[in-house]
Amino acid sequence: MNIITKEITIKTKHENQMIDLSEDINNELKSSGLETGIVTIFTRHSTGAITTIEYEPGLEKDFPAMLKRIAPDDIFYEHENTWHDGNGRSHVKASLIGSSITVPFKDQKLLLGQWQHVIFLECNIEGRDRQLVFQMMGN
Amino acid sequence: MNIITKEITIKTKHENQMIDLSEDINNELKSSGLETGIVTIFTRHSTGAITTIEYEPGLEKDFPAMLKRIAPDDIFYEHENTWHDGNGRSHVKASLIGSSITVPFKDQKLLLGQWQHVIFLECNIEGRDRQLVFQMMGN
Amino acid sequence: MNIITKEITIKTKHENQMIDLSEDINNELKSSGLETGIVTIFTRHSTGAITTIEYEPGLEKDFPAMLKRIAPDDIFYEHENTWHDGNGRSHVKASLIGSSITVPFKDQKLLLGQWQHVIFLECNIEGRDRQLVFQMMGN
Repeated sequence: MNIITKEITIKTKHENQMIDLSEDINNELKSSGLETGIVTIFTRHSTGAITTIEYEPGLEKDFPAMLKRIAPDDIFYEHENTWHDGNGRSHVKASLIGSSITVPFKDQKLLLGQWQHVIFLECNIEGRDRQLVFQMMGN
Repeated sequence: MNIITKEITIKTKHENQMIDLSEDINNELKSSGLETGIVTIFTRHSTGAITTIEYEPGLEKDFPAMLKRIAPDDIFYEHENTWHDGNGRSHVKASLIGSSITVPFKDQKLLLGQWQHVIFLECNIEGRDRQLVFQMMGN
Repeated sequence: MNIITKEITIKTKHENQMIDLSEDINNELKSSGLETGIVTIFTRHSTGAITTIEYEPGLEKDFPAMLKRIAPDDIFYEHENTWHDGNGRSHVKASLIGSSITVPFKDQKLLLGQWQHVIFLECNIEGRDRQLVFQMMGN
């Protein structure tokens, strides 16, 4: 059993940007030589999130639109009292979606479905440099 | 340390159907001979989700009712422009809940609480054949 | 590869209380002697949840306020027909957030970001004794 921990940085440009990580993770898997196991995909931020989605232009709008319904831009967030940085909505969205997913792999490939992609979602109100961890554990 | 990957197919009949997977997973654990570790339960679909819940008839209605409040049936989803399949709501619900959970086990049993069950939730607008992965990793 | 399973109990005092688990988990990691791997943090309850958040007084209010928008206190939940315990909202919130997260560690420390904390959120309508599992797997 081996564990390989890759720390990478991506750059986002704006709120609600979705970045497809699937190919990067599959490339890391091939380099690792591991056949079977899990990859934990983790973001080291409280205003960004990790999930799976069908990565296409419609859902790139629909998913953020749903998040905006539950954490609107134009209400007051108590977080503002602490930091005055206008990103209260970003934190509550990110905590609801989650910062981590675990995906099984076999034959050196993620067991994603045909339409399923692992994405990072920028929840902050502007783009940022974002640190991610891909940790592979397996044989 | 061993890794055992089980791929199974279940059949759902309608939108919002909840299927309790707990007993199936515990049976796989017994067959595996593993004593301690984690099970990753993963669905290979972008319109189905995995979570834990108290599996009883009231919550089988309440949980979908909450999802319908945040992703209503009667609004327009941009996803429709890509596929014209009427399931935009299904995708955003599934991505919010998540496609994967990781549950620890000990003494060959999931460490679920007394009322806690692992479920698959059909988020699509009709029933489907659904592929799941139960991947056990442990000693 | 080693697996260490710690079962702990915490006590919450009221609905929506957030308890920061990060230091406890890091202390368990130090005691374990493991250098690299994953920790699965799991709650054995269907009315409590695990996620990551920036742990500060504003978000301690904002995150529950968002949950209340999607699962209001003053609507009827079908769960009431089964148990008459008034906590239908607690179940749907907890199932949406999730009962489990998996966090990678390296050099005996969780790879959390600077502002990122692992928390238990009490979703029930009053405080409870809560069982948690921290399961460490690594080298």
